[in-house]
Amino acid sequence: MAEASRTSEARRDAVFGRWVIFSPARSRRPTDLKSHAPANPSPGAPKPSCPFCLGRESECAPEIFRMPAPPDASPWRIRVIENLYPALRRDAEPPAPEEQAAEVLPGERAVVGFGFHDVVIETPRHDVRLWDLDADGVADVLLAYARRVRQLMEHPAVKYVQVFKNHGASAGASMAHSHSQMLGTPFVPPSVITRLNCMKEVFKSLGKCSLCEFQSNDILVSETQNFSAVVPFAASNPFEIWIIPLRHHPFFHEIDKDMALDLGSLLRTMLQKLSKQLNDPPFNFMIHSSPFEVSSSPLPYTHWFLQIVPQLSVTGGFEIGSGCYINPVFPEDAAKILRELHCSI
Amino acid sequence: MAEASRTSEARRDAVFGRWVIFSPARSRRPTDLKSHAPANPSPGAPKPSCPFCLGRESECAPEIFRMPAPPDASPWRIRVIENLYPALRRDAEPPAPEEQAAEVLPGERAVVGFGFHDVVIETPRHDVRLWDLDADGVADVLLAYARRVRQLMEHPAVKYVQVFKNHGASAGASMAHSHSQMLGTPFVPPSVITRLNCMKEVFKSLGKCSLCEFQSNDILVSETQNFSAVVPFAASNPFEIWIIPLRHHPFFHEIDKDMALDLGSLLRTMLQKLSKQLNDPPFNFMIHSSPFEVSSSPLPYTHWFLQIVPQLSVTGGFEIGSGCYINPVFPEDAAKILRELHCSI
Repeated sequence: MAEASRTSEARRDAVFGRWVIFSPARSRRPTDLKSHAPANPSPGAPKPSCPFCLGRESECAPEIFRMPAPPDASPWRIRVIENLYPALRRDAEPPAPEEQAAEVLPGERAVVGFGFHDVVIETPRHDVRLWDLDADGVADVLLAYARRVRQLMEHPAVKYVQVFKNHGASAGASMAHSHSQMLGTPFVPPSVITRLNCMKEVFKSLGKCSLCEFQSNDILVSETQNFSAVVPFAASNPFEIWIIPLRHHPFFHEIDKDMALDLGSLLRTMLQKLSKQLNDPPFNFMIHSSPFEVSSSPLPYTHWFLQIVPQLSVTGGFEIGSGCYINPVFPEDAAKILRELHCSI
Repeated sequence: MAEASRTSEARRDAVFGRWVIFSPARSRRPTDLKSHAPANPSPGAPKPSCPFCLGRESECAPEIFRMPAPPDASPWRIRVIENLYPALRRDAEPPAPEEQAAEVLPGERAVVGFGFHDVVIETPRHDVRLWDLDADGVADVLLAYARRVRQLMEHPAVKYVQVFKNHGASAGASMAHSHSQMLGTPFVPPSVITRLNCMKEVFKSLGKCSLCEFQSNDILVSETQNFSAVVPFAASNPFEIWIIPLRHHPFFHEIDKDMALDLGSLLRTMLQKLSKQLNDPPFNFMIHSSPFEVSSSPLPYTHWFLQIVPQLSVTGGFEIGSGCYINPVFPEDAAKILRELHCSI
């Protein structure tokens, strides 16, 4: 097998500028890597106490919108609601313009915890996971994200919206019912700044967008009309997947219905493959877009994408201290395994 | 209580430039926060299969040095050995100077996995934790780190050494016997670059070192002749502690015996306090120093310190995606609790 002959290698990627050490000697064979703590061993029957289930809407924080919209007689399929325990508060006073201006200066800063923390309930059913929905259902979830991001960007103090999904308790999910979240922050988060700076440097130096050029058959898992799914060249975690739009575009929230359907279908397949190959691992996915203050005309170096990170290992002091990761599985090997895996679901 | 009246706040620190959202509503009272999975519930009797125990030295990878040195008739107290499963390999060909030069250019890079991955066995006894040693014993561990870092910096291809300790399986420790590790890397890790850039910007803008000015009674836990222990202004995790030398100095590895004794005593007290307050939590500590290529004369903006991070919560998609953290405990509240806690050990 290919992986048997590999020796350690350190790789730096062209998007985050992060270094990852690939160290196959520290693991069993990549095909043996499984989650020891499946995220959702038995989604099973609806839990009578789950406030995200159909019929318990009154136990949740206020609804922002639902799909289909209320005049429709059918029950809801997706609800976007406020988080009952928000990390940032929509009722706090947003930072004044002079406070916002001061944020570009280096040094310690404290601002009031203003912002938006919303939850997207992806299905009314407790026993359905995101990848159990059909492609249309996943597309609707993506369109709900995009619609809510467009609403949040109307607020002048919201600088960025981080869309993310935690699946499984050890990936940060406090509710088992399938859902995702988004946080609208009054500052551009540090990883976004690092990513944009890194991609800008690559563009200045090489004259190309880091993600437009991100094409190699070795790391490709699957491709559709509009998207590539790859295990990135410097994947920080085993079996990490990036889904990248083939056409250069800085903003996720401008996705249209056709794109959403194409992405929904690919995302569903990738989540099915990870679940099957890795024994329903806890995972996170994150949408990496651009800050709103960036002009809406497609900037040459910023390109949105969706990152899926299965949580198979713990983060230790080396990773926390250095910002480097150690990954026992080479991206080419993970991509081959995922490419050849057939999901009959 | 002070914390009852607090509302959400976002803070950015002057060392890493990271944003942390303090959201007390998302947690119980700070004093109730405990580890649900104690790292080492019963260190208990020596395990016959532990290769780090006295008498099983032949089962380990090669020894680099021990303390006291071999002519001494007493048994060893500390051993520095090679890691049996190194992430980087000392026998690999180091990157050529032209490869090293290319690393400053942006974009994808791959280098052979050359480097050093060493283990410091802190005690010959299986049932002793680092903070069970006396201050002299902890000081010797710190002096062993410093000595090994000085050895590694002699290698022209080693750019940085990350010293760290993982305590508890969920903090990344694969062995229960008390030990720490260090990785000598052929590149300057990304978090080190971010930290140095952030501190440089603060220095340029405010004319002061971010850590020399890091003094506030509200966040102070304890102080000795040479060090302050504080819960940092923008602590990323509940009860995170930074131990900072009072005198400006860029390099940990130049610590002398008196300083090591002073630091050993303070580190021991801080680990005892965390263990008592938080129910023996899994934790990581990391020493943040400067890259070797930085001139040895104390640079005005770089200042080494030791960071202790108890692992009480999981990292989710928001943290991975944005690089921001959500912390339910304000640093001032955590510092007060730790300051007032008496350890009779």
